[in-house]
Amino acid sequence: MPLEAYLMSMAQVQAIPDGSITSTPGFEAAGVACGLKPNGALDLALVYSPQPCVGAALFTTNAFKAAPVLYDQRLLAQNATNLHGVVINSGCANACTGERGLRDTVSTAAAAASHLATAPSSFLVMSTGVIGMPMPMDRIHAGVAKAALQRTLSVDGGHAAALAIMTTDTRPKEFAVKVTTDDGEFTIAGMAKGAGMIHPNMATMLCLLTSDARITPQVARQALREGVEGSFHRITVDGDTSTNDTVLLLANGLAEMQPITSTESSAYAGFLAGLSHVLTALAKAVVHDGEGATRFIEITVSGTCSQAEAKQVAMSVARSLLVKAAIYGQDANWGRIICAVGYSGVAVEPERVRVWLGDLELFRNGEPYQVDEAHARELLAQPEITIRVDLGQGGAQATVWTCDLSHQYVDINAHYRT
Amino acid sequence: MPLEAYLMSMAQVQAIPDGSITSTPGFEAAGVACGLKPNGALDLALVYSPQPCVGAALFTTNAFKAAPVLYDQRLLAQNATNLHGVVINSGCANACTGERGLRDTVSTAAAAASHLATAPSSFLVMSTGVIGMPMPMDRIHAGVAKAALQRTLSVDGGHAAALAIMTTDTRPKEFAVKVTTDDGEFTIAGMAKGAGMIHPNMATMLCLLTSDARITPQVARQALREGVEGSFHRITVDGDTSTNDTVLLLANGLAEMQPITSTESSAYAGFLAGLSHVLTALAKAVVHDGEGATRFIEITVSGTCSQAEAKQVAMSVARSLLVKAAIYGQDANWGRIICAVGYSGVAVEPERVRVWLGDLELFRNGEPYQVDEAHARELLAQPEITIRVDLGQGGAQATVWTCDLSHQYVDINAHYRT
Repeated sequence: MPLEAYLMSMAQVQAIPDGSITSTPGFEAAGVACGLKPNGALDLALVYSPQPCVGAALFTTNAFKAAPVLYDQRLLAQNATNLHGVVINSGCANACTGERGLRDTVSTAAAAASHLATAPSSFLVMSTGVIGMPMPMDRIHAGVAKAALQRTLSVDGGHAAALAIMTTDTRPKEFAVKVTTDDGEFTIAGMAKGAGMIHPNMATMLCLLTSDARITPQVARQALREGVEGSFHRITVDGDTSTNDTVLLLANGLAEMQPITSTESSAYAGFLAGLSHVLTALAKAVVHDGEGATRFIEITVSGTCSQAEAKQVAMSVARSLLVKAAIYGQDANWGRIICAVGYSGVAVEPERVRVWLGDLELFRNGEPYQVDEAHARELLAQPEITIRVDLGQGGAQATVWTCDLSHQYVDINAHYRT
Repeated sequence: MPLEAYLMSMAQVQAIPDGSITSTPGFEAAGVACGLKPNGALDLALVYSPQPCVGAALFTTNAFKAAPVLYDQRLLAQNATNLHGVVINSGCANACTGERGLRDTVSTAAAAASHLATAPSSFLVMSTGVIGMPMPMDRIHAGVAKAALQRTLSVDGGHAAALAIMTTDTRPKEFAVKVTTDDGEFTIAGMAKGAGMIHPNMATMLCLLTSDARITPQVARQALREGVEGSFHRITVDGDTSTNDTVLLLANGLAEMQPITSTESSAYAGFLAGLSHVLTALAKAVVHDGEGATRFIEITVSGTCSQAEAKQVAMSVARSLLVKAAIYGQDANWGRIICAVGYSGVAVEPERVRVWLGDLELFRNGEPYQVDEAHARELLAQPEITIRVDLGQGGAQATVWTCDLSHQYVDINAHYRT
């Protein structure tokens, strides 16, 4: 889909070196430490656009939606065109915190609006961290005040903001592109956090995107939906869908271009191409930094009757703990790949299935095929592993990304709160 | 269901001390080493009944069915009343081995029949171990010959057989009961193996049951289906469904009783009560010995509109790596339980949900409830952990069993083949 959109649009998508959420003209950001993380690290980000923004977002499908998710959903339903920014905190998810949690979110948003003298309902909120812990509001308020200071909030604050939203992430995830189309030039930038509890829908935890494109909220939402389907919905670390997952796009319309008002336009295709580029880069970065990951695994399933079937089989392999543990151990245990294909729920004809590890064919006609163990070991020693499965039934395919299951994953998650 | 059946039947179900697969009158067994396991441990079991048996079985739902699964399915379709036993080997799964694998299974069954002078199609085969490795048939033939020797095969051979079917199991899993009903007295005995690749359907790898009850194959199959639904289909270790899962029941009809020919009879209820007792004991033993397990976790979900919904929610919690890792780390991170309830797919009203760890209430009305961390730590230090979730919507409930996720699980599965 991204590739087709790209070709259709004839848009040029160019990565911006050292890109961050403030690569987009008109956006300022700050990352501050307000004591939510016990080690004193940055833990509160503020992203601000003096120019009012259009907003569009996708949220977790979990029935227990965190307070900021409920708040953002309601706010965007009422106001998707006059937004000024977002407050993002790590260290506390503000999930399962009842009425108090909602009040805390409202108060956080109001504090940002008050400091920056914007309309009361112009700030969104995102939170990530431990579930069920009440928000230490004195620290949040102090953090928002600090972040909103003129000398802190700046067009150079993107990197600090990306650091402030990290939890078990070992590195920030940022990416920005410049998109050039016949209809004008604009920027799309993004940052994400997420190392565990990663699974569609939504496989992300938190992702914020900024753009200066001129676009309507409806069309922005459709682009987000399409872009996320090909990126965050194609990754899994541990199969857990969090209570806080949010992908939010803010577009301030500062670019000189005709507004994108229809998904049928070539300008939309260009916007989608750029957005997909950023989303895919961030999604892969999340997997690369998956909790305890030592290997990045790309799984492509082809030869299915539909893309949905291909994705289902690929996700079944990507979720298998046995496949992930074998890759961690650099063991070419392709039987486990076959096994996960077999229980995916998609009708499979075993004698038509073929499996490759990198360029090495492992399985064909229902039986093992020239398994060169030495070459397999070589491939498995690489940081990036490619698995390809062909079901031999049709012309559709899908690619998903995951990581291996290591001792470190257990370490990180056995003692997350303590 | 087992309890209702038990009450309905007024049957007495009594555990047989030191029970094994040969606790059932008329069954002989042997466990021998034939070189399939590199360390020289027992790796081939033979179970034999001179009296012809009725057979019933349930098999894996995986599309890649191992050769012995395909063979047993075909054999039972033709002959479910004149069976004499089963050959079970560990060390090699004979899965994804193509035509050769099927020929090897046929040849294994034929060897046993020939040594014991029974009809050629009277032996079933079960295999477990590495997927995709061809069967070393010279060793298998030598093993069957050794096991069939009169001095090896005996009514005391049950324990050796249970040892011979183990793979990553750390201990054998055996259980036997005596069932006394108004209609007569009979025995049901079972053994199982399975430490990883444990998930419904079927959550077992291999399970063999023997009985001297008089029962028709159709009724035996129905009892097996009902019994497994309440036992092996309620456990998960790692969410992987294997290519070889088989639960097989052989009944030689030696008990003095009226034959059980209908599922409506009280004798059937007694049989089901006894069978459920054995199956549940074995299923729990599999979880207790789950790969790397340090904790046994019982999860009961109540207050749902149907038992199926309760099971779905309970399994969502049981599968969550984050819940399992937190319990390994003795961290009362109940947020992860709530999170897994929330993405189970069952419609949940957050403010009605309640969660308990043992006797400690953790969550009520959508928010945390008197979390006594000291007491929580005490509970989590126990080898058996009880989690209870009430959705507050209806009167149905279900219980499932799982284990924690430890460093040892990763160890075992990173280097299974090597």
